[in-house]
Amino acid sequence: MRYETFFRDQLAALKAEGNYRTFAELERISGRFPRAFHHGIGREVTVWCSNDYLGMGQHPAVVAAMRDAVEKHGAGAGGTRNISGTSPQHVALERELAALHGKEAGLLFTSGYMSNWATIGTLAARMPGCIVLSDAANHASMIEGMRHSRAPKHVFRHNDAADLDRVLGELPADAPKIVAFESVYSMDGDIAPLSDLCDVAEKHDAMTYLDEVHGVGLYGPTGAGVSERDGVQHRLTVIEGTLAKGYGTVGGYIAGSAALCDYIRSFASGFIFSSALPPAVAAAALASVRHLRESQEERRLHQRQVATLRRRLDEEGLPHLRNPSHIVPVIVGDPIRCRGISERLLDRHGVYVQPINYPTVPRGTERLRFTATPLHSDEDIEHLVSALSETWSEFSLARAA
Amino acid sequence: MRYETFFRDQLAALKAEGNYRTFAELERISGRFPRAFHHGIGREVTVWCSNDYLGMGQHPAVVAAMRDAVEKHGAGAGGTRNISGTSPQHVALERELAALHGKEAGLLFTSGYMSNWATIGTLAARMPGCIVLSDAANHASMIEGMRHSRAPKHVFRHNDAADLDRVLGELPADAPKIVAFESVYSMDGDIAPLSDLCDVAEKHDAMTYLDEVHGVGLYGPTGAGVSERDGVQHRLTVIEGTLAKGYGTVGGYIAGSAALCDYIRSFASGFIFSSALPPAVAAAALASVRHLRESQEERRLHQRQVATLRRRLDEEGLPHLRNPSHIVPVIVGDPIRCRGISERLLDRHGVYVQPINYPTVPRGTERLRFTATPLHSDEDIEHLVSALSETWSEFSLARAA
Repeated sequence: MRYETFFRDQLAALKAEGNYRTFAELERISGRFPRAFHHGIGREVTVWCSNDYLGMGQHPAVVAAMRDAVEKHGAGAGGTRNISGTSPQHVALERELAALHGKEAGLLFTSGYMSNWATIGTLAARMPGCIVLSDAANHASMIEGMRHSRAPKHVFRHNDAADLDRVLGELPADAPKIVAFESVYSMDGDIAPLSDLCDVAEKHDAMTYLDEVHGVGLYGPTGAGVSERDGVQHRLTVIEGTLAKGYGTVGGYIAGSAALCDYIRSFASGFIFSSALPPAVAAAALASVRHLRESQEERRLHQRQVATLRRRLDEEGLPHLRNPSHIVPVIVGDPIRCRGISERLLDRHGVYVQPINYPTVPRGTERLRFTATPLHSDEDIEHLVSALSETWSEFSLARAA
Repeated sequence: MRYETFFRDQLAALKAEGNYRTFAELERISGRFPRAFHHGIGREVTVWCSNDYLGMGQHPAVVAAMRDAVEKHGAGAGGTRNISGTSPQHVALERELAALHGKEAGLLFTSGYMSNWATIGTLAARMPGCIVLSDAANHASMIEGMRHSRAPKHVFRHNDAADLDRVLGELPADAPKIVAFESVYSMDGDIAPLSDLCDVAEKHDAMTYLDEVHGVGLYGPTGAGVSERDGVQHRLTVIEGTLAKGYGTVGGYIAGSAALCDYIRSFASGFIFSSALPPAVAAAALASVRHLRESQEERRLHQRQVATLRRRLDEEGLPHLRNPSHIVPVIVGDPIRCRGISERLLDRHGVYVQPINYPTVPRGTERLRFTATPLHSDEDIEHLVSALSETWSEFSLARAA
């Protein structure tokens, strides 16, 4: 086997189909978000595709908490959670996340990917006879957790509670079941009918597992997500979230019953055998969660700027996917053209929006995905819409009616 | 299915067999390592089981780099590596890690667990007909990566190149193969015969995958690990390491050929779909790696204090596993007694050493695992050995001849 040749051939195929990814080297400048210095083109740009949805990564309280904790406690945790790696910051953050979601307990992971993979993987593998029900649009981390468990999996139609009901009706009534879905789907920006899904799951005595990764911090009176806004937190067995998006730091977590979190803590390989997050990261995340439990300002401004962006796109006839969330996808439908528009926006207008291609979205739905934050000004939006409109014409793309 | 009852029953079984884990809540105090404040008992203790092997988590250059980067660039990366999450700190760290290991490229992950799981999982799943050869003592993260790939797996006897040769000899000559092993095995502290394993792998045209997690920073003239010390870096296809142990921060990585790292970067789900580490963590890790490439002082003192600890244990007749590494395991062989000794050391002597039970080690080999660092003084070692000797007598355990 010629290994190097194999790798090179696979990469060449990726390039030929337009799906090879080049990472933009961006220097974030605290206090200047959404501006960043783009090392590839050597100038400052406006970031229009960050998942730091509320700009909390540069919030003074968050930065101060992280900086102070680094000074006081050092750079790392020093071990896995079990072997010298648990700090008061970890403990306080897990308590805060439990309270945020109205659950008995919380459990931290090094990433949202890990929290999904390890929790679903462990539950589905270890409950004898467990069957997984998966929304057709679920995130890779959940799908890989299901794959890892080797439990039988049934996919129900995206956001379709009636289809879930149908699938569940065909399964043995007494088998343990996990119904897994997201609140906000990050690439289309649509939102799940949480209450309907809970109705169906309860009818069939299934556990519910909600990925709130793109909802936490952003929705609900205390930022606990769409499940808080919709009043269904208590009906979900597990709420999974991230600290890397709305909360502006890094890491993932679950919230659930004390027994469930203790069970995952005790049996999930990906939790047990990972070094803990630095106490300073936990301190920063804690400051962020606490701030967003109290303050409505970021959420209010966020919604306002998202609405402004949508209105201005409509006025210019620039087509975008209608959805009830903060995510504004503009479908291009071809990987090479999608990259071309992104490059033009960057080079000519200083607008950075990464082209989103396969495997992040299905082939043929390649897109630009704009995320307005509370820190994008009205002028930023004007500049983006004007740049996109000009580029749209240059690429001879169709306007909306 | 009564889910809560299931979780509670499983936890009760874990408790009954003595394997239920309670996390010590430890407040690290920068500048005072190995001292930390133990919130459970409300007093300062000496940490004897940290994986911050060289105390780099509180090194002034590391703390300053992290603090400064938080101030300048904020708390988080703002996205996955592809979607706005790549910073100059990530790029510089990957270059530094490549140079450290004498490889063309490096690739960062959010944890060492993820780097093993994602890299092995992706290679083994995507190379048609791939077969995995796994050392019998490999870490859970590698084993889970193999499981995930669903590639056929053959286990060879621990650290046994002849057995690997035998197993490889029975496999089809032209099938792609990955031989996966570690340098330092973290629980027994034994070290792999890297050169012999490379000989056998080369003879059979297999890729080699080395987990250097417990070696990097600690061994070799520039801290590149046992593979550097043994002069075999160039013979390994992939060298995987962590930033959370010898380097005192958090995160994992691989180093290898440009094509291989680009391949994993482009196809590994766990890489693609995880938010990037905060730039500040990358900055801290970079400072740590750079320092340990130049400075021999930490490694010299580390080896000295490990040798001192071993000599003093021998003088007191306290049995410990002989091995050529920095890890000093004292086998107790029973989970309940192991925990009892640990508790006595903590309560009476202010010595914190976590009992290591199943599943981290096989049942019947429960142990205390002592890690002396350059920051443990001779007095710290005296205090530990005296405390352990007293406890050994109280528990009526046998002395070495």
